[in-house]
Amino acid sequence: MTEIERLDRYARLAVEVGANVASGQDVLIDAYLDAAPFAQRIARAAYAAGARHVDVHYTDRQLLRTQVEMAPEESLGWAPPWALTRLRHAMDHRGALIQVLAVPDPEEMEGLDQRRLARAVQPELRQLSLQALNQGLVNWSIVAAPTATWARNLFGEPDLERLWQALEAAIRLDEPDPVGAWRAQVERLGERARLLDACHFDAIRFLGPGTDLTVGLLPSSHWVGGSQETAWGRRHVPNLPTEEVFTTPDPGRTEGVVRATRPLEWMGVRVCDLEVQFSRGRACEIRASHGQDLIRGAAAIDEGACRLGEVALVDSTSRVGQQGLIFGTTLFDENATCHIALGQGLAFATLDGGNGINRSSIHLDFMVGGPEVEVDGLTADGTAVPLLRDGDWLLPTR
Amino acid sequence: MTEIERLDRYARLAVEVGANVASGQDVLIDAYLDAAPFAQRIARAAYAAGARHVDVHYTDRQLLRTQVEMAPEESLGWAPPWALTRLRHAMDHRGALIQVLAVPDPEEMEGLDQRRLARAVQPELRQLSLQALNQGLVNWSIVAAPTATWARNLFGEPDLERLWQALEAAIRLDEPDPVGAWRAQVERLGERARLLDACHFDAIRFLGPGTDLTVGLLPSSHWVGGSQETAWGRRHVPNLPTEEVFTTPDPGRTEGVVRATRPLEWMGVRVCDLEVQFSRGRACEIRASHGQDLIRGAAAIDEGACRLGEVALVDSTSRVGQQGLIFGTTLFDENATCHIALGQGLAFATLDGGNGINRSSIHLDFMVGGPEVEVDGLTADGTAVPLLRDGDWLLPTR
Repeated sequence: MTEIERLDRYARLAVEVGANVASGQDVLIDAYLDAAPFAQRIARAAYAAGARHVDVHYTDRQLLRTQVEMAPEESLGWAPPWALTRLRHAMDHRGALIQVLAVPDPEEMEGLDQRRLARAVQPELRQLSLQALNQGLVNWSIVAAPTATWARNLFGEPDLERLWQALEAAIRLDEPDPVGAWRAQVERLGERARLLDACHFDAIRFLGPGTDLTVGLLPSSHWVGGSQETAWGRRHVPNLPTEEVFTTPDPGRTEGVVRATRPLEWMGVRVCDLEVQFSRGRACEIRASHGQDLIRGAAAIDEGACRLGEVALVDSTSRVGQQGLIFGTTLFDENATCHIALGQGLAFATLDGGNGINRSSIHLDFMVGGPEVEVDGLTADGTAVPLLRDGDWLLPTR
Repeated sequence: MTEIERLDRYARLAVEVGANVASGQDVLIDAYLDAAPFAQRIARAAYAAGARHVDVHYTDRQLLRTQVEMAPEESLGWAPPWALTRLRHAMDHRGALIQVLAVPDPEEMEGLDQRRLARAVQPELRQLSLQALNQGLVNWSIVAAPTATWARNLFGEPDLERLWQALEAAIRLDEPDPVGAWRAQVERLGERARLLDACHFDAIRFLGPGTDLTVGLLPSSHWVGGSQETAWGRRHVPNLPTEEVFTTPDPGRTEGVVRATRPLEWMGVRVCDLEVQFSRGRACEIRASHGQDLIRGAAAIDEGACRLGEVALVDSTSRVGQQGLIFGTTLFDENATCHIALGQGLAFATLDGGNGINRSSIHLDFMVGGPEVEVDGLTADGTAVPLLRDGDWLLPTR
């Protein structure tokens, strides 16, 4: 298979399984500059699926870097009006949205003032984007482009063949029928979510080296996994790959301490050895060996940025986890293991449209699971139900 | 000098002489994808000049190609609302605009339906853009990025060093004081424009092999050259390089036939051996050995697309012409020799704000001059005043 044919298979998956583009739809593609060759193939696949118009916007991390270095403070997190217009138009006209990540070179954002980098996050645009996802106003999906930079990060050399093999296994393109494999995977995650809902847990507890964290849930917290549905009923798979079941917690009831089990990427920076102490839902202490100021800055963006918006469970059957790699992008790494997210909660992961969920303009996932971390569901009467031990999923099927 | 230092010198020229970015201004950069490394340096130069915010949009010709191949007819020339919002915001807030071209590979648009390509021109956006320029609502400039593709087109190999030398000579970066050299050049072109205005020509006539064309002027036609001024008085140099003096003609009074003396680039296609017959201002017959359907399609976009909006004079002292190259982008080639443009007229090139000028959503320049083409100014009483012979400028200084 040529590189183009490989990209085209991946692009079709993004369009047909991920965003599930409908005939006649307008499609927004938000792609990092390095992802251009993949974004171009996704655009083709979208037109092939009947898209009316495909509009690609390229994000250039070099420009972000320059802005953080040189722009006046007042314009740092400013979103130009057109960026809001573009997204709102998709929200108002049942558009599709495909985000195409390119994993950054870890050096790319080195040496920047991380507080300024954190402020460059464009809160107004992020908030609108989270609103679009929360209210199901676009059918969307996030994918990551295979690039030489990514291969070099993973293997020390730009070995694209090896990257492709890891990606194809993680996103089930190694299956004879990838679309069928995804249908089964979505079904399996949906079943897990239904089992968790039936348990009516009051909290989730993580216990492991450096971690003793209890994440309180809302009575309305609803577990979600696999696919989602737009407000008008279009099924889509928001992340490719996806291996998680998740819900949105009570923003006032997270207690304890948690140590990240993998580095995370935020604004192009690799954040290492993150540790967060929570009290009454607030992240009151944040430490990291690299990227500390960035995460502290992110958590200070607004009132809700220091509270949790998501808790997600992933077991060791994860195709992503099984690759044994730190992919260096949250899209993949959060699907290797359990994670929680600071910031905006998920209205679609409640039974009542999102009353009482956390509100923020950011949503920052970090990985807290692994074979060494025990995960329990706690019922209202205090009973602990083991959910994960040694990475194995323990909740029995009824 | 390193490649980055060379780009930075060029970028400073674009920002300081071209758009003349003011402190506190917002800057839009519209760049072709291949021009990204140059656009990134222009963004830095703009912040260094005091820009408040720099917003780069990348245009990807591969996506245009895909759209022309695959998009439904109805969306082909559609401009997404955000693109209009983006430009309008700059127009309403005294923004600066820098366009960064990348010369296409001549193969890039081969094999497309040229009528469809012509229709993909986004008339609404082009019209707004022409309005911004005509009304002086942004300080703007167009530059072209040095790329391997461009070098390969010119020299048969990606000889960037040779390209840089041609560019640096054409844009006066080979001068000890490029900014001073541009000040002198702008002054010189302004003086030529004043001389032409003083002649009150009724028409300009081109006579050469395959060409006998009379372009009638308006009584209000005003000659312009070098720099322009925004509505609020900001001087800028719209094209780098610029070697032309030009005005806007009477859209109803072009008569005769004209043969292009150089190929021209439109929508990524190299149009060769263009010949146009005019009657009462209308291009009634268009022929070309390559790109004929494209130009016929462009001239049919709207009522004014088949009439002239500009006539421009360039003599053999042109730094661009002296390079002896077909650069393959109108920005350069139109500054090598005399040219005319189909489509939108230029309100700032009249004495009365643009009454009676041509209206269109396109502005398509093509080259009609050269040592073999005689150019005369015709006065109202029919006297022919020689303006160019053998490429030499003949109009005497008072």
